[in-house]
Amino acid sequence: MSFAVRVVFIISLTANLFALLMLCQNGVFSAIKRSVRNIIHTKTLQTDDLRSVSIYDDKFIISGLPFVARGEDLYRLPESVRSRIRPILWELGKQPSGGRIRFKTDSNSIAIIAKSSSSVSYHMNSIMKSGLDIYVDDIYTGSAWPDINGDIKKRFYLGDKKLKNITIYLPLYSPIKIHKLYIEKHATVARPDDLKLISPIIYYGSSITQGASASNPGLSYPAIISRRTGIDFINFGFSANGLGDIDIAKLIGTIDSSLIVLDYWANPTSGQYKKSLPDFVGAIRKKKQNIPILVISPFYSAGLQKQRREKREIAFDFVAKRKRSGDSHIYVLDGENMLSRENSSGLVDGIHLNSLGFWFGANALEAKILEIIDQ
Amino acid sequence: MSFAVRVVFIISLTANLFALLMLCQNGVFSAIKRSVRNIIHTKTLQTDDLRSVSIYDDKFIISGLPFVARGEDLYRLPESVRSRIRPILWELGKQPSGGRIRFKTDSNSIAIIAKSSSSVSYHMNSIMKSGLDIYVDDIYTGSAWPDINGDIKKRFYLGDKKLKNITIYLPLYSPIKIHKLYIEKHATVARPDDLKLISPIIYYGSSITQGASASNPGLSYPAIISRRTGIDFINFGFSANGLGDIDIAKLIGTIDSSLIVLDYWANPTSGQYKKSLPDFVGAIRKKKQNIPILVISPFYSAGLQKQRREKREIAFDFVAKRKRSGDSHIYVLDGENMLSRENSSGLVDGIHLNSLGFWFGANALEAKILEIIDQ
Repeated sequence: MSFAVRVVFIISLTANLFALLMLCQNGVFSAIKRSVRNIIHTKTLQTDDLRSVSIYDDKFIISGLPFVARGEDLYRLPESVRSRIRPILWELGKQPSGGRIRFKTDSNSIAIIAKSSSSVSYHMNSIMKSGLDIYVDDIYTGSAWPDINGDIKKRFYLGDKKLKNITIYLPLYSPIKIHKLYIEKHATVARPDDLKLISPIIYYGSSITQGASASNPGLSYPAIISRRTGIDFINFGFSANGLGDIDIAKLIGTIDSSLIVLDYWANPTSGQYKKSLPDFVGAIRKKKQNIPILVISPFYSAGLQKQRREKREIAFDFVAKRKRSGDSHIYVLDGENMLSRENSSGLVDGIHLNSLGFWFGANALEAKILEIIDQ
Repeated sequence: MSFAVRVVFIISLTANLFALLMLCQNGVFSAIKRSVRNIIHTKTLQTDDLRSVSIYDDKFIISGLPFVARGEDLYRLPESVRSRIRPILWELGKQPSGGRIRFKTDSNSIAIIAKSSSSVSYHMNSIMKSGLDIYVDDIYTGSAWPDINGDIKKRFYLGDKKLKNITIYLPLYSPIKIHKLYIEKHATVARPDDLKLISPIIYYGSSITQGASASNPGLSYPAIISRRTGIDFINFGFSANGLGDIDIAKLIGTIDSSLIVLDYWANPTSGQYKKSLPDFVGAIRKKKQNIPILVISPFYSAGLQKQRREKREIAFDFVAKRKRSGDSHIYVLDGENMLSRENSSGLVDGIHLNSLGFWFGANALEAKILEIIDQ
């Protein structure tokens, strides 16, 4: 063999071994199987009797993403903060948790073609992570999820030809592009019914706030509470990064809201939490003197008892102190009312909530929110 | 180049292309990343201060798997039916849904090394599919899940050194081998406290009964009801294969039970359901004349209205007919009491229940079960 042939041979052998290694890795075979199944699945989408509509049309409302202008990406944060915030926050801000596309139609069915992501996780399914939920008049009516390439193609049958409010809940943990939205050819589109005529509730927090590990985009606790109360919401949960960043506080101060919920005890250390709370609330108060702020102390979690106790005390002490110094619009809720030891089967991995946990959480938080807002 | 070198070269080139193709498939990169992360994670398991105990020891009870003898695989069906039943039922029977390992210990921590599977799914996370839940005195205390190779290695800290009941819930959708179970070196093991002293409830049904798509092994509706009532249970839910197989009915007739729940409306067509119900119940009744049988009609699902109506009628008519012909131990529950349109956010994909849906389902079914068993 010549030297060149020998080199090619060695490179090839390495590649062979690598290919073999890949195949031996469990998961690759099933990934291929899934891929094939999904390709077959997605090829079945029929659109002959449908017409395409644009989510950026006047008749559509994109709720929960206050900075998205016509034609722009469905991101949570505005371009204006990009250079100021930590890069990871910008990445997480591309995940449109809490984003909803709302409209009204008398179409008997709708179809969606979109691109999100195909990544998987131990505690999240791909429906919540990268998929979509459809609610009709606030009743859950189905979901779509991506294939191995991140492609979503699905037609939903809605049951009748009456005019109805459609809400498409965007993925909680993956950026998404809606390529096409279809309704039936002779159907009409109209503006959706208004939500309750008060400003949205803003939730700031961690992965739990963002929605991990609900089973569905419509099952984060802010989404559940919004359907129950009719009040719009903005989800500023930043997975592993709810650290009290002052630039996020400043941004929150610029958004019209009826209540600001601070649920970010999970990510910072006790020290960081204690240090950041006064600054974070201070930055909001510079812009919003009278908007109620609700601080949530830690939920129950399996383990982490000491940290939970410390952070609970920090939250309660902080709110008491602000009240004493004249802030009459600040409140505190014991997170263990949202998830207690007795309801700990609402945890998926000892820390994150599952759909049941979000339901428990919404029950306690909804009561507190109504108490505050009714005042 | 010689002919042989050329052949090797071509084979190698193909392998190279294949390796490249593999890499280009989305998901593979993340699978590798996950794998690396998991290897790091699983390597941290410390067992120096632990001692190994055997789940087949006298002090351990393996609940929910009535046919598992000492040292045998944790399967749901006995070897004796293997040749008679459809092969897919045998495969599904290897998935130990409802299986629990129960014991008592004063150890402050336990550790588990096990092998399950690494496959993923659009509507299931790997915790429920292939992982384990640990409950301490019926309180959820954490979960373990497999890495990309299906390996589970995890230590659980239980909070104190009191004697407490440990329940390990086995995976709902994957066979598992428990290689090692550890407790602390100087800790003791004892028999677990008895469950309520009545025979277990047997649930026969589809994927929904088996537990898809709860977030956790402990969150199928039979598991929730068992924790609430203290009554043991056996889960004979066979994903996509709850078709009224007569051999399963005969098997159920051989198991000591206090109630048999038939929740298998989801998989058969209306015709198959109508035809199989009398035979299935007849085969049970040959062995168990007086054990209460509860037939559940369809849950709510997005779509499938006609089939649901038909099957509801079949279930109700069948029970009424058996009552008229003298069977005073048969009952029916409207599945829409377990999951209604109003509670349809308890569905993950329009058909299967999420953890919230199982909770809703358990609420209605528990009430009905207590009503029947108290009679």
